[in-house]
Amino acid sequence: MEFDSLFNAQLKALKDEGNYRIFAELERRCGQFPTAKSYDDDAPDEVTVWCSNDYLGMGQHEAVRQTMKDTVDQCGAGAGGTRNISGTNHHHVRLEAELADLHGKEAALLFTSGYVSNWAALSTLGSRLPDAIIVSDALNHASMIEGIRHSRARKVIWKHNDPEDLDRKLAALPANAPKIVAFESVYSMDGDICPMQEIVEVAEKHRAMTYLDEVHAVGLYGPRGGGISEREGLADRITLIEGTLGKAFGCMGGYISGSRALCDFIRSFASGFIFTTALPPAVAAAAQTSIAHLKVSQTERELHQRQVARLRQMLNARGIPHMDNPSHIIPVMIKDPVKCRMLADILMNDYGIYVQPINYPTVPKGTERLRFTPSPLHTDADLNRLVEALTVLWKQCAIAHEVA
Amino acid sequence: MEFDSLFNAQLKALKDEGNYRIFAELERRCGQFPTAKSYDDDAPDEVTVWCSNDYLGMGQHEAVRQTMKDTVDQCGAGAGGTRNISGTNHHHVRLEAELADLHGKEAALLFTSGYVSNWAALSTLGSRLPDAIIVSDALNHASMIEGIRHSRARKVIWKHNDPEDLDRKLAALPANAPKIVAFESVYSMDGDICPMQEIVEVAEKHRAMTYLDEVHAVGLYGPRGGGISEREGLADRITLIEGTLGKAFGCMGGYISGSRALCDFIRSFASGFIFTTALPPAVAAAAQTSIAHLKVSQTERELHQRQVARLRQMLNARGIPHMDNPSHIIPVMIKDPVKCRMLADILMNDYGIYVQPINYPTVPKGTERLRFTPSPLHTDADLNRLVEALTVLWKQCAIAHEVA
Ligand SMILES: Cc1ncc(COP(=O)(O)O)c(C=O)c1O
Ligand SMILES: Cc1ncc(COP(=O)(O)O)c(C=O)c1O
Repeated sequence: MEFDSLFNAQLKALKDEGNYRIFAELERRCGQFPTAKSYDDDAPDEVTVWCSNDYLGMGQHEAVRQTMKDTVDQCGAGAGGTRNISGTNHHHVRLEAELADLHGKEAALLFTSGYVSNWAALSTLGSRLPDAIIVSDALNHASMIEGIRHSRARKVIWKHNDPEDLDRKLAALPANAPKIVAFESVYSMDGDICPMQEIVEVAEKHRAMTYLDEVHAVGLYGPRGGGISEREGLADRITLIEGTLGKAFGCMGGYISGSRALCDFIRSFASGFIFTTALPPAVAAAAQTSIAHLKVSQTERELHQRQVARLRQMLNARGIPHMDNPSHIIPVMIKDPVKCRMLADILMNDYGIYVQPINYPTVPKGTERLRFTPSPLHTDADLNRLVEALTVLWKQCAIAHEVA
Repeated sequence: MEFDSLFNAQLKALKDEGNYRIFAELERRCGQFPTAKSYDDDAPDEVTVWCSNDYLGMGQHEAVRQTMKDTVDQCGAGAGGTRNISGTNHHHVRLEAELADLHGKEAALLFTSGYVSNWAALSTLGSRLPDAIIVSDALNHASMIEGIRHSRARKVIWKHNDPEDLDRKLAALPANAPKIVAFESVYSMDGDICPMQEIVEVAEKHRAMTYLDEVHAVGLYGPRGGGISEREGLADRITLIEGTLGKAFGCMGGYISGSRALCDFIRSFASGFIFTTALPPAVAAAAQTSIAHLKVSQTERELHQRQVARLRQMLNARGIPHMDNPSHIIPVMIKDPVKCRMLADILMNDYGIYVQPINYPTVPKGTERLRFTPSPLHTDADLNRLVEALTVLWKQCAIAHEVA
């Protein structure tokens, strides 16, 4: 069997439709964020990163780095085992307590990533709760979709961010089946935020459990960085809050938080939790430092919101269309994978501005976009340079002034 | 719906059968491996870890730690994005080249863990190759089983390590369907090693692709630490070699290596690769240092094998039964979850010897065991203390001198 030819045929199809991905090879530079060294031949040596999900630059925060280095010296590089077999380090336990506190929950459980936490938690809930039905927002993240698929539980999709549709869908289900309403707070590609209060009320009415992904909100929203559920005062009404340590907290790893019984249940039965090496203690300790800092400091969040608002105003002033939303994510719709890649290439090679073209399968075909994520570390000069470049390009290209 | 009561009922069942897991909370101490600080109330403050999968102690290796710390200062804590969206760092690219070289392959692809690499690669191969059939060794690891399950491809199980059964199973399948023979080199719970040459020959005869998990062999076997496939001179006949950076290499992460087309295919289509934050550059760089060191240094491997052989001899001399196998893993069968936990508790609390009781679902019910993994850092005095303690316990307990 010529396996390579099977692979190449599918890769060729990707290339033909403009969806083949080329990764930008960078070297992030501490002290110089959002600037990075580029290893790509056509790009300048130094580029400004405009699409990082290290939203607040906490990855280069002095205290975070110091904790990581100190813990490497204290405990070594890796954990050395699964959580069960010699891999549970004091730093994991402390981080879980920090996370439980962040969301005001009894407990939290760490995973190697946000992806794994969604996949493992949903597949375990869906497969082990008899007759469970997962009621999933239409735009949920791949990690949730795969977890639901893996569980083989019955799945019902409700219209994105539409509590009325959720109500109808729940009402149509058997009253006694355990129901899990799965949704996100900030949707990362459109930057819209769910109507959380309404969703929670509908779920409560139907005695459904709520499963909330706050991956793009933790650290960023709420007075202590507890996410939209904290900001809206709804955390105690959500059954399970899931998050990542890899975005605003600047590290790596994922988690769930909820009741002690819930976390113990997932801990005891989830294959994706049990059968894998634990996070390096140094990563866990660094994440804890980052969370603790963002629980008390508003500086990063305030400057973040300021730069986001500023960039929006500047784009508006130049008539560069971008999706309207109440979050920190600024999508500029291009709606064609080839054009999107072309614009990104020009920005990178001619202007040293790095923004990855977002294409299928990350977004539906026909909704390709450039997705800008200003951080507190982007200066006003950075913003100016970006808007100048976009203005030139928008004049050159025929796509100018379309409404997104 | 009272969800907690549903969770508690299943947790109670686990407790009743003796399979509820209690994690030992440790703090590994650099420079003192295999000694760790224990945070458990009943245990002594300092314990000797006898069940780490940081098999060679590379997690505390000076150069590995130095690289990790330097890279934290150079690039920050986390990667800041998925591999596609700003998360590809120079250190990931270098590590992938190092891994391809380790296995003599064209390419390699990094994942956040060995679990994710197996799950993502097998689910992608099984779901995207039309009519694929996955032919899986009966004792394959959970991460492979879940990947196969997720793919929804047809699955055929062959008898553990039995090339004749594999031959029969393959012969019964449609000649033109793409077939993937999935197996491991060192099986981590029994420590047996597959008859690789025979398996490869059978697979070649049926034009099947070979998928080999070398998680418990990389770094440990072969003149450059390329695993059993390197030791046996078979790496170039295996289609895909999968491994981890979290065990003998002492860090975290997983990978596959194979042809350029194969790695590009998984890179382009695997949800578990695409939709997740990349490994921290510092972890990637540390792993690369560890791999590069073990490519040229035989010291760790030789001392490892010496201590393993020595412990076996000492156990034999005292008549303490252990499973016979040609690897570095020494399982002592207890065959009862409650007794197994009891023995582990006595070892921990009375002797400061930490070995996690291995129970279901990690091993089948009725095959509970203590699994010892001597490292090059366990001194002869450590071995003596362990064997003395076991001798006392074996005299006390009725289970002594049973053949495993
Ligand atoms: C909504 C959402 N959930 C989960 C994840 C996965 O988190 P992680 O990157 O920690 O794996 C992501 C993105 O990566 C995401 O966008
Ligand atoms: C055979 C095997 N494959 C894969 C894995 C997963 O590797 P990782 O710990 O890097 O997730 C493990 C154990 O953890 C394993 O024993």
